Amino acid sequence: MTEHSISRRRLLGTATATGVAGLAAGAASGAIGHAAASTPAGPALNTLGSATVPFHGTRQPGITTPLQSRAHLVAFDLVPDAGRRGAAALLRRWSTLAAELMAGRPDEAGTGIADDAGPASLTVTFGFGHSFFDATGLVERRPAALAPLPAFSNDALDASRSEGDLWVQVGADDPLVAFGALRALRRAAAGTADVRWQMAGFSRSPGATARPMSVRNLMGQVDGTNNPSPDDPDFDERIFVPAGGEPAWMAHGSYAVVRRIRMLLDDWEELPGEERERVLGRRRSDGAPLTGGDETTPVDLAATHPDGQPVIAGNAHVRVSAPESNGGATMLRRSFSYHDGALEDGAPDAGLLFVCWQADPLRSFVTVQRKLDRGDALSTFVRHESSGLFAVPGGAAEGEYVGQALLES
Amino acid sequence: MTEHSISRRRLLGTATATGVAGLAAGAASGAIGHAAASTPAGPALNTLGSATVPFHGTRQPGITTPLQSRAHLVAFDLVPDAGRRGAAALLRRWSTLAAELMAGRPDEAGTGIADDAGPASLTVTFGFGHSFFDATGLVERRPAALAPLPAFSNDALDASRSEGDLWVQVGADDPLVAFGALRALRRAAAGTADVRWQMAGFSRSPGATARPMSVRNLMGQVDGTNNPSPDDPDFDERIFVPAGGEPAWMAHGSYAVVRRIRMLLDDWEELPGEERERVLGRRRSDGAPLTGGDETTPVDLAATHPDGQPVIAGNAHVRVSAPESNGGATMLRRSFSYHDGALEDGAPDAGLLFVCWQADPLRSFVTVQRKLDRGDALSTFVRHESSGLFAVPGGAAEGEYVGQALLES
Repeated sequence: MTEHSISRRRLLGTATATGVAGLAAGAASGAIGHAAASTPAGPALNTLGSATVPFHGTRQPGITTPLQSRAHLVAFDLVPDAGRRGAAALLRRWSTLAAELMAGRPDEAGTGIADDAGPASLTVTFGFGHSFFDATGLVERRPAALAPLPAFSNDALDASRSEGDLWVQVGADDPLVAFGALRALRRAAAGTADVRWQMAGFSRSPGATARPMSVRNLMGQVDGTNNPSPDDPDFDERIFVPAGGEPAWMAHGSYAVVRRIRMLLDDWEELPGEERERVLGRRRSDGAPLTGGDETTPVDLAATHPDGQPVIAGNAHVRVSAPESNGGATMLRRSFSYHDGALEDGAPDAGLLFVCWQADPLRSFVTVQRKLDRGDALSTFVRHESSGLFAVPGGAAEGEYVGQALLES
Repeated sequence: MTEHSISRRRLLGTATATGVAGLAAGAASGAIGHAAASTPAGPALNTLGSATVPFHGTRQPGITTPLQSRAHLVAFDLVPDAGRRGAAALLRRWSTLAAELMAGRPDEAGTGIADDAGPASLTVTFGFGHSFFDATGLVERRPAALAPLPAFSNDALDASRSEGDLWVQVGADDPLVAFGALRALRRAAAGTADVRWQMAGFSRSPGATARPMSVRNLMGQVDGTNNPSPDDPDFDERIFVPAGGEPAWMAHGSYAVVRRIRMLLDDWEELPGEERERVLGRRRSDGAPLTGGDETTPVDLAATHPDGQPVIAGNAHVRVSAPESNGGATMLRRSFSYHDGALEDGAPDAGLLFVCWQADPLRSFVTVQRKLDRGDALSTFVRHESSGLFAVPGGAAEGEYVGQALLES
């Protein structure tokens, strides 16, 4: 045990001590440290394994952190007698555990699944659902922004895979590290909260592409192109609840909308390539708008063909979802793909674990989804199968835990 | 389309032309080429994306190829009227497709899921099940080695997820590349063969650990330690059917046993660490035998404690499965972990997609599994849920397809 702890510390010591190289897209709590352990006596981890994301900070990790290649989204319900006290103790245990695992320190209670590997950019993010406030007797502290999302005509939601008292997002660049964290978090919840639903997702492996910012989804689309950037002057106010915002315990927090969106890939793949591009309004090859340029070129919604027809069709996804079409509504999309084998009819059970972040879900997600629901050509090829809305509070300082301002003040 | 093909060729040209750096564990068809594309005009792929494994060769890829981080195992059944001719045409289409995808050339019929990424060490491996020979009227060519495996007392096999006419193993170091290949292979089979079952697996991400040869499974065990090495003098004869072996069309081929082995992780993780180590006969921390040394130190099965008790228990997994305990039986294990969420009772649906390779399954897998079935302390914690045995013929030369010697001679 001691021998093991020491060798682990030696292995990871350099990484955690010196890992501070900021990443453009990282911002605030999302900064990633890359450093190879170089103690001559120990084996060296390379950058993938040794990359660490700090747990403690003003904001929680896993929001502006670059997308990892593996994710687990899990909702828990509190057991009937857990109450506010049980929930507080659980969040304290979870915060301690997340800080340890994210720093690459082994889970002594666990099986060692993640041993030998570094934290591999592990992040753990905690959120509260609408029902959490009933279960803990804190109804008067429930944010207005957690009001249930409206029903959309294209929804086919499975309630057993929707919502939940607590939501945990786990991301890592190694599947065993992610699985080990999931097991540890579940074990730490035993007796206080049971798993309500869980979903596993994935994205590009680091280094698989020379264009790491352009992640493709399972339809082959370049995804996340028009995401707001932490460099945008209004990024913070659109994505995060400000200090002094309402409620006070949500300062530096954000609201996550989580939707399991199944893709009807058999139908989609039968469409000729040009029709797929017309549905989206973007080129398949590089994600550039059909009005020209490259992926980052703004879409020219006004452009017309010589015959007067718009280049970007009236129901093209890129037009209907554009901020210009939605009063400037914007959200930070940070989605993973999923593939859970086949449905009974042989169709792939695969699609997008859509996760988006915003300061105000009514103004952002709901505004855009209402528009998409009415007139998006892409909606023929997708089914929203589950939905969740979670209040994700700000990050915890050292010695504190996530949600402490809600549960103890 | 043309523009796109050109840019892809530019992107990958350098990698496929110069990627010839051999890898110690690679051997024969498993050699991997690493080379970053460096044409100044195009973006550079790094080594993960640009790593290619050749499709053509004496042996099929995916046997001695280093384990990738993502895998799909899929069985297909031929449609009733496919016959030998339909099967031959399918194997020709599949071979052409696999060669293209593994070289990093885009699937023009596909959605472009893998575009931007290189092949990321993609491998596609094809095998024939017992029933393939009935379906194609080739019963007299069925290898004796494909005789059904005996029943084991610890089996709880689901026939619908076992066996199958055809077996395809897809591996890649990027999940989107692997998924894209799976979709393309399924599309190419349409009208000739339907998916019988499919399973998705994973292993360590490259670079996650400084000990890449020691992969842990979901029990936290270092797995694959005593695997035979391509450097062993008897490696070829134990793992591959020799030229001149029986049947002739299996020259340079191998037999794959595929078992979905669910792990009872809730029970396993409740065991104290020392008991887990006793069940295995190895240390959790580094995989060294309990008789001392490091992971590569041979197990001393004769060692005793001062009280005369053996250090390695009589039912320890490492003793029961040791070649010394099985008349020298050996096989190349190349397994992936799986995690498909939770079962109805909340227990994890997770474990090992056990894949092992050998020239003679009766002498190798069956010998060892009979022993494990009778006396392995680990068997309390695992359930064999599905089983398949497949004849994996030698590799295809340029212009030929896998299985041609069986289907056309």
